[in-house]
Amino acid sequence: MTDEAASGGIQRWAVRIEYDGAAYVGWQRQNNGLSVQELLEQAAAKLAGGRVVPSTTAGRTDARVHATGQVAHLDFPADLPLTERTVRDGISYHLKPHPVVLLRAVLVPLTWNARFSAIRRRYHYRILNRRARPGLEANRVWHVKFPLDVDAMREASRHLLGHHDFTTFRASCCQAKSPMRTLERLDVVREGEVISLYVEARSFLHHQVRNLTGTLQLVGCGRWVPDQVREALEARDRRAGGPTAPAEGLCLAGVDYEPDPFGPDLSGSGGF
Amino acid sequence: MTDEAASGGIQRWAVRIEYDGAAYVGWQRQNNGLSVQELLEQAAAKLAGGRVVPSTTAGRTDARVHATGQVAHLDFPADLPLTERTVRDGISYHLKPHPVVLLRAVLVPLTWNARFSAIRRRYHYRILNRRARPGLEANRVWHVKFPLDVDAMREASRHLLGHHDFTTFRASCCQAKSPMRTLERLDVVREGEVISLYVEARSFLHHQVRNLTGTLQLVGCGRWVPDQVREALEARDRRAGGPTAPAEGLCLAGVDYEPDPFGPDLSGSGGF
Repeated sequence: MTDEAASGGIQRWAVRIEYDGAAYVGWQRQNNGLSVQELLEQAAAKLAGGRVVPSTTAGRTDARVHATGQVAHLDFPADLPLTERTVRDGISYHLKPHPVVLLRAVLVPLTWNARFSAIRRRYHYRILNRRARPGLEANRVWHVKFPLDVDAMREASRHLLGHHDFTTFRASCCQAKSPMRTLERLDVVREGEVISLYVEARSFLHHQVRNLTGTLQLVGCGRWVPDQVREALEARDRRAGGPTAPAEGLCLAGVDYEPDPFGPDLSGSGGF
Repeated sequence: MTDEAASGGIQRWAVRIEYDGAAYVGWQRQNNGLSVQELLEQAAAKLAGGRVVPSTTAGRTDARVHATGQVAHLDFPADLPLTERTVRDGISYHLKPHPVVLLRAVLVPLTWNARFSAIRRRYHYRILNRRARPGLEANRVWHVKFPLDVDAMREASRHLLGHHDFTTFRASCCQAKSPMRTLERLDVVREGEVISLYVEARSFLHHQVRNLTGTLQLVGCGRWVPDQVREALEARDRRAGGPTAPAEGLCLAGVDYEPDPFGPDLSGSGGF
């Protein structure tokens, strides 16, 4: 069934995906529950008349993490007559009723790779900072019920920007060869009851955004002074860092490529 | 058990409530499923050691409609030692695990009434205007998959502002004595893929916001010119109006009182 794929007779499609991660074990296939990858590949296989359609993703999001701009590529058999519309709408249709949808689909060369061609991952972490637990935003925010000092968090965040050894903020199970990463953006912004962290880098270590967030939260609530974040970073020891912030506040907002295979959104108003 | 309440031995508490309406039959008690009112009164009764705590609300939201600023009052037996904190946090605790929470609770005079003292209801209706169905925002928006012309919707909305007979936009089952209402605000704003309608009035007819929205959507997609909304309004006939927009896009954002029993939010950052 996969002779064609095995022989390289494939066509590669880049897809941009949005999902509510609350109900899933994360991007990657697992034995203990439904993954977004499994849902996507099953839907793609239906479009391919039952043939196997393997996927590769830019960001292997953890269980319960959301995405508004995840990117993956799918390798379809070359003989299928596919168009941007049939891939995007066909896969989204087969993904029903799951809260997982394709926003875009474009044909890319076989040299293009959703993971290795990416030049930047953009994450958005949201903290609901009020006494009352979330009602309408349940499963979409980290609820912190004591007031956080955003100015102090912002001051601390400056120590983390740039090229560093991020061992302190790396999950012990992280499989990356090097702990060196370059944090290009780490903005802390309050909008009413919600504190947003915007975090960007070419690539991230496992749990890096959640560990940075959990540590900045220690500064926000006054248990740490901003300078302690610099000391923690310099310790290069996971035990020197703060706790891992919960997954539900995290959202993969986008992945950047150069050139952007998706090109400009011609509709000007969001993908019609 | 309710002797005290019957004899007027009550203390009245105003509460501000947030909820995700997706799973409920609406505010009001029904035989066909769980209502927010039932959940609130059950939680209040637990706080009152099993005694009955009746509620009155400012806005009887429909099934699947959300609220970030619903207001109700609860009549507790006068002898209970209640504080703002015990009412707010105690009821929110007993509401677990439902996505219904109390944001504030204040003691009010018995002359104060959540429904009749209200001088303004504020609604927020959200349309997700893109081809792809909602992923992360499933059950929170109306998905309209053809492009809407916000300028035309805004032009049409001007005909609806002010004091009018809103029979055209009133559910046939509406029990209000008069179809006259004064629309104080009807703003149509696009933010990326989301079109927001901000609608304010002292009070609304049944389904009025959803019927206005469904009619403006006809203008947005080009089936009606803006002037047809004026003609529809003047027809004073429900059959002259557009369809009822789905409940899931609607949110009761706030209810105003003068003076405001909740007073200023002293924390300055959202109710700690």
